[in-house]
This record gives sequence, structure tokens and C-alpha cells, in this order.
Amino acid sequence: MKRVMLTVAYDGTRYHGWQIQNNGETIEGILNRCLSELLGETIEVIGASRTDSGVHAMGNVAVFDTESPIPADKISYALNRRLPEDITIQRSQQVDPAFHPRHTVSHKTYEYRIYCAPFPMPVRRLYSHFTYVPMDLSLMQSAAKYLVGTHDFKSFCSTQAQVESTIRQVESLDVFREGRELVIRVTGRGFLYNMVRIIAGTLMEVGRGYIAPEEVVRILEAKDRQAAGPTAPACGLTLVQIVYEQ
Amino acid sequence: MKRVMLTVAYDGTRYHGWQIQNNGETIEGILNRCLSELLGETIEVIGASRTDSGVHAMGNVAVFDTESPIPADKISYALNRRLPEDITIQRSQQVDPAFHPRHTVSHKTYEYRIYCAPFPMPVRRLYSHFTYVPMDLSLMQSAAKYLVGTHDFKSFCSTQAQVESTIRQVESLDVFREGRELVIRVTGRGFLYNMVRIIAGTLMEVGRGYIAPEEVVRILEAKDRQAAGPTAPACGLTLVQIVYEQ
Repeated sequence: MKRVMLTVAYDGTRYHGWQIQNNGETIEGILNRCLSELLGETIEVIGASRTDSGVHAMGNVAVFDTESPIPADKISYALNRRLPEDITIQRSQQVDPAFHPRHTVSHKTYEYRIYCAPFPMPVRRLYSHFTYVPMDLSLMQSAAKYLVGTHDFKSFCSTQAQVESTIRQVESLDVFREGRELVIRVTGRGFLYNMVRIIAGTLMEVGRGYIAPEEVVRILEAKDRQAAGPTAPACGLTLVQIVYEQ
Repeated sequence: MKRVMLTVAYDGTRYHGWQIQNNGETIEGILNRCLSELLGETIEVIGASRTDSGVHAMGNVAVFDTESPIPADKISYALNRRLPEDITIQRSQQVDPAFHPRHTVSHKTYEYRIYCAPFPMPVRRLYSHFTYVPMDLSLMQSAAKYLVGTHDFKSFCSTQAQVESTIRQVESLDVFREGRELVIRVTGRGFLYNMVRIIAGTLMEVGRGYIAPEEVVRILEAKDRQAAGPTAPACGLTLVQIVYEQ
């Protein structure tokens, strides 16, 4: 028996998110089905990040155990032949049998993209949130600085979430222009439910001048979801990579 | 009566190209239908570039004449409400009644994008041509230099095309890396049928080492479609902009 780690990329547009559910196709469900068919065993993957419906990934991670003689690094090729074209395995590799993708210390990087122009751009509509309200990049950059570091991010967590602690460490949070898009790139060891999208929604309010950059301090201190900006739409969010320590 | 110019952006994935045809939806067909409904007149647009099936645009141009009292610059807003989300008007403006989008001197810029990696990336699959064969950027850049300027591009024109002259001027042709993609950006006053995709297909062969950069001179001199590389797939091509002189 060996444990195999997959680096998984997907276009989340037509999926009901990562996690298996009854009403709709999910990334996890398709991986389980295609892996089980390929390997002739019942496979159930464990995912690193259970991304929401409509969220994209360039490098999510899943692990599973198998008795298959197929070398771990060849599973990517065989599995990609079975997967739909909006899901691909970027890499497959053998890992320690004790490796767990959510319990091992990691650094996750997400990008939130905003297409800010008078009218939407069709080729970007599925991967970037469109808004015609202009935004001031330098205000967003000023506000972002207050969120870097270890804070109680309770105000940036959707209320339905049940977690032991809402303290998280944001290792970096950069806001920059790339072509016609604004990009919010954030790296941290872990994020609360909807945290990146609430950070994006709050920074957009700052960019529009509705919230002053320094008010972000007050929003953190409030420890109240109502104090922060709205949850930005899913399509603008992409899980770029997960880097494991060890 | 006034003549209105539209700057049109679209995701070409699900269309049978620009030009109206019997078997399938086209950009031109949808524009005519939505404009006719909006303005209560029979509208037939004249397009600048009749892009192929699957090719995208950020700034194609179409003109039409109308008796409508709607100000030309407001037509974009009204029309976008009727168009599907994979076609948007970026701008509408009144132009001289004699303006013709194909007979007026213009500078067209196209980008051909190549995603070169071991496996495809789902979020780029519709907008970038995937290949796992590595390419040498500097070889492609060397070859590109030979194509800049005024040449007989007969070798870079699909044979079914009937044109008076195959001499064209390539004003610039740059090859560069952008993130994980190679981008071929070309600007010229006009292009032959499939010319940009044949240039892209030829530069890819150069990048793979199958054609030496200086052989491009011989390919031009051959004036024979068989001498050049293959026509690169449509999905990698985007018409970025058309700038009119005057």
C-alpha cells in the first residue's frame, strides 16, 4: 500500500465546489470515480482545500491510498486521460503514509482577480470578478498592510463556520495591477471559511472609498462579520498553490 | 441617419466565427438580431475582421447605419443588456457616414498564446493553445525578426484564399513569456487568411528546433504554403485591437 499525492487544477465554473454532495457534480466526486475506475479499487481522496462552488484551482492537493502497481508519478498521465478537460492532475507523487494534506503545515496562496472597466470582458468573465465602479489601487495597498500578520480574523469569517479558533496568520497580502486586472494575492498557513473572499470584498470597498484603509484595524477589532465588507463573488478566486513544510 | 461604430469583444469558444452562415451561431448573426430588436429596424453590421470559429476578440470593430434617436454612445449600454454574456460591446460611437471598417487604413494587433507545460491548465484551456513539447523562446524571437517588414506572405496564407496580392506589412512581431504562457503579438495593416495562425505554427516549429530561425527567409521566398509550419489551433488566437488612422 502506498499514499499518493495529487496536485489538482480545475476550472470551477460548472462544479458545485470540491466537496461531495448529493445535488451536483464536485471535484472530489469526479476524482473518486475516475481513480476507482482506473485503479480497480474504491478510492476516496482527502483534499487539502475544500473550495466553494465556482472557485478555481491551479494547485489544490488530494491524497489517497492504493494497492496499485502503477508507479505514483505515472498516475497523473493515466488519470488525465479519464478526467474531463476542466480538471487536470498537474503532478502525482508518492508521499509518506502518515502525510495528511490538512494536518501538515502548509502555505496556501490564493489570487482574487477583479476586472474593473466600463463593460465586462468576455474572455475574462469566468475567472475575474467584473465591476464598473473604479477602484484606487493605492488605498487597497494601504489597507492590505493592516491584515498582514497574526490576527483574530473573526470579522472575516462567514458566521456559519464552526471553528475552535479564528486566529490566523496572513504571511503576505499584495495588491497589484496585471494588465487590465487588479490582483489580490494572499499567502497564509490556513484561512477561515470565506476569509479570502471577505478580504477581497473589504479591499474592494476600500478601493471605492467606502472604507478608509485605517478602518481595517477597527474591523479586525470588532470580531464581527457585519463590520467587514461583503463576500466577493466566487468566480474571481483561484487557489494558486499549496507548499508543504517538510 | 447616422453611422455607428461598435468595438466588440467576444469569447469565440461556442461560435462558428464572425461571419453569418447557415449551420451555427455567429457573432455577426447575433449582433444583427440584437441590434434589429433594439432599434426596431433591420440592421446589418459590417465587420472589420471576420475571425474564424473559436477565435476570440477583445476589440473587433463593426459599423451599421441607423435612424434611431438613441445617442450613438449609449447604444453600448442598451445592446449589452440584450447580448449573451460571451459577447460585449466595449464602446459605441458615431463615425463619418463614409467610414468603412475594412477599407480604412488600420493597424490590427493579434495575440497568439501558448501554454507549454507537462499537462494542460484548465483555466487557460479555452484561451491558450496547450503543448507539452518544450520551446526555446530565443529561437522564436530570432525567427520573428525575419517576418517583420513588407514581404510576400504567400507561404503564410491558406491556399483556399483568393486575394489580389499576398504582399503584406508586419509592423511588429514580438515573442515573450507572460507567466506560464508564451505570447506571440503581431501588429500589421492587414493579414492574409490564417496568416497569424500560420506564423504562430511556424514559430512553434522553430521553438521546438524543427526549423532553424534563418530558414524563415527561405520559407518566405518559397511562396508556397507547404514550406511553412502548420496552422496553429484557433483557441490560442485573440484579436486584441484595431486602431484606425484618421
